[in-house]
Amino acid sequence: MGPVINDYTVEVVVENKPLARDPEGETIHRSLILKGGFEQVTGVRAGKLLRMTVRASSKDEAKGLVKKLCDDLRIYNPSAHECQVRVVEGRENRTSE
Amino acid sequence: MGPVINDYTVEVVVENKPLARDPEGETIHRSLILKGGFEQVTGVRAGKLLRMTVRASSKDEAKGLVKKLCDDLRIYNPSAHECQVRVVEGRENRTSE
Repeated sequence: MGPVINDYTVEVVVENKPLARDPEGETIHRSLILKGGFEQVTGVRAGKLLRMTVRASSKDEAKGLVKKLCDDLRIYNPSAHECQVRVVEGRENRTSE
Repeated sequence: MGPVINDYTVEVVVENKPLARDPEGETIHRSLILKGGFEQVTGVRAGKLLRMTVRASSKDEAKGLVKKLCDDLRIYNPSAHECQVRVVEGRENRTSE
């Protein structure tokens, strides 16, 4: 018998490096959120999310595969962005469906 | 003494509803990932991520505030998108820094 193959949900988040400016997040923060009266929000960073369904024999294999494809296919620009890869277990807390 | 106020990191994910098509995710899947030889990836959905720093007296208060601002400020279009709000505890697994 071979290994058991499962579907894993893997999220990829691409955003500007922490020390780089993020004009999109700054604009959402200043012109939308603060103007709307939500001063409790002290910062906003904007990014791109890719949610992938991956067939793999383990969580680690799924994560490793996605990290590799992000690097190999240049899903992000390593000089400008950081890329975070995480395996998620289901989804929760949607405010609309 | 008043309540202790902490900083919470709250992520907002806005994406097309599950039953709606997602041309951006489909294109990334077909023209980049499958062409690149990563057939283990069986689907991709693309979305927007906003990471907010919120001052609040509890995790639930932080989450409730962000849900309210997403609705009040029309951060998403309820007829086309779903909006997921989650409080995160730190960040992990970056592939570049």
